[in-house]
Amino acid sequence: MISSPRIGLDIGGTKIEGIALDTAGEITARRVVATVPGPAGVLGASAELVRALAAESGAQVADYAGVGIGIPGQVDRDSGTVRNAYNMGLSSLALGPELSARVGIPVRVDNDVTAASIGAVHVMGLDGTVAYLNLGTGLAAGMTVDGLPIRGTDGFAGEIGHLPIDPRGRACPCGQFGCLETVASGSALKAHWPAGGEHPGRTLNEAVAAGDADAKLARDYLIEGAANATRVLGLTVNPGAVVIGGGLRLLGDPLVSGIRAQLREWAAASEFIAALGLADRLRVLPADSPAAAIGAAIAINE
Amino acid sequence: MISSPRIGLDIGGTKIEGIALDTAGEITARRVVATVPGPAGVLGASAELVRALAAESGAQVADYAGVGIGIPGQVDRDSGTVRNAYNMGLSSLALGPELSARVGIPVRVDNDVTAASIGAVHVMGLDGTVAYLNLGTGLAAGMTVDGLPIRGTDGFAGEIGHLPIDPRGRACPCGQFGCLETVASGSALKAHWPAGGEHPGRTLNEAVAAGDADAKLARDYLIEGAANATRVLGLTVNPGAVVIGGGLRLLGDPLVSGIRAQLREWAAASEFIAALGLADRLRVLPADSPAAAIGAAIAINE
Ligand SMILES: [Zn+2]
Ligand SMILES: [Zn+2]
Repeated sequence: MISSPRIGLDIGGTKIEGIALDTAGEITARRVVATVPGPAGVLGASAELVRALAAESGAQVADYAGVGIGIPGQVDRDSGTVRNAYNMGLSSLALGPELSARVGIPVRVDNDVTAASIGAVHVMGLDGTVAYLNLGTGLAAGMTVDGLPIRGTDGFAGEIGHLPIDPRGRACPCGQFGCLETVASGSALKAHWPAGGEHPGRTLNEAVAAGDADAKLARDYLIEGAANATRVLGLTVNPGAVVIGGGLRLLGDPLVSGIRAQLREWAAASEFIAALGLADRLRVLPADSPAAAIGAAIAINE
Repeated sequence: MISSPRIGLDIGGTKIEGIALDTAGEITARRVVATVPGPAGVLGASAELVRALAAESGAQVADYAGVGIGIPGQVDRDSGTVRNAYNMGLSSLALGPELSARVGIPVRVDNDVTAASIGAVHVMGLDGTVAYLNLGTGLAAGMTVDGLPIRGTDGFAGEIGHLPIDPRGRACPCGQFGCLETVASGSALKAHWPAGGEHPGRTLNEAVAAGDADAKLARDYLIEGAANATRVLGLTVNPGAVVIGGGLRLLGDPLVSGIRAQLREWAAASEFIAALGLADRLRVLPADSPAAAIGAAIAINE
């Protein structure tokens, strides 16, 4: 149950996913449109999508309490400004106020991973302390307690992709060495397995099955890094569930079984790690779940 | 302001520190007694201390809403049971119910580092997201949001002392290698500088100043490890303040300046780390501050 009907958008580099929620928290409309890069394109496509979602739900835009947006980049939640969302051509945009002016209802902007962590809790019916580990182009996490996110002082909570875990590791674009993101992310897959092309996650399992040694090594790094990220989340917030999300979750069982096996190996060596119960607490966000759009919608009045 | 007067105890391996708080959150009595090891000793000394604190405040024990206890070891907050608090001779004790039966008011038991993190926020007048890094015999952290602690599912939140940060690091008693606690803790100081004896923190600065190379190396490890722990906390919860507590904080300026210098070096190499503002956000819990006793008292009705 939520207090009012609302609309949620998950704005990504290639597509914008939108949903409308009724007061029962149920999806009444769902649509995906292509992202049009640049400020005018993003605003125009988003406004049109909001109207289409309302219409599909048999309602007016004004019937909704607001629009929640999940978007990558640096988000200033108070001003609704997003910065450095380069993969959709936005260096700085007052997305909240600008979209609100176009659709006539309040707009609340959120970091996409934080939004997804809120949405995952809702979709999967979880409670208590939950960690969400996003394995996408990059690696980042969201943490929630009883559905409410830990945002941190500047909105940087959960940026564990840039936690160095091996002083002798690879250089990361962030300026450090051996960051989690350099082993467990889509960009790491590309670096370790250049033959995989622009979307290595789509063909990785097949290549490993066919005996490609680089693909195997890249997947092993991914698995160990994701297990390591899970352990970091375990030791910091001691979650009752760790949800794997992001595009790479679609690697499915080879990824998830691999992470569980690594966590079990560590637990066998350390009672301390065993007590965190991480392998048994690992879950996967269902495929095709619009978690970020749902989470952004839920968080509009938070 | 708190809702009722209450008493707080910080039970450690050598001493029990107690305070009484009035409804303004001010200390009306403060006493320290020696810890008497074993269940009967701990219960007897604690009950006597509770009575003495009430008397010193000109009140009856029954005038207090309850007693909050911070204690090391595994704490089950619901049942009030503490396990594996070996340095005070407790393998398993229903401390909450047993002490409550002796003093006649409710008793709430908390992990000592979590209690100290709550108390530090109160004592230092902090708000928002705050991380507390305890550098004692071990290394552990507490995290609070607007004064409320992140406890985790099993009370293990903040156990970052057992986060491995270097796969080639030393073996840790927990069964892993290169844990933060193996470089930045009192036990690590002992291992790296055996000449420092049982309480290496007390003479470390003098030994370094006198040219002891092992002491210098031990302190450098401590500084880098504490900076690393601060970075872990920065990337996970993005705190507005990181408070250094625990006995080793009494190393003072050489420790704190060293941690700040390391954080600034990392920030200079990475805009991403710079944005967390960690060096400027580092604080030190005032010497002689009974933070754990105060925090335990504050948390009795949480
Ligand atoms: Zn990095
Ligand atoms: Zn350890």
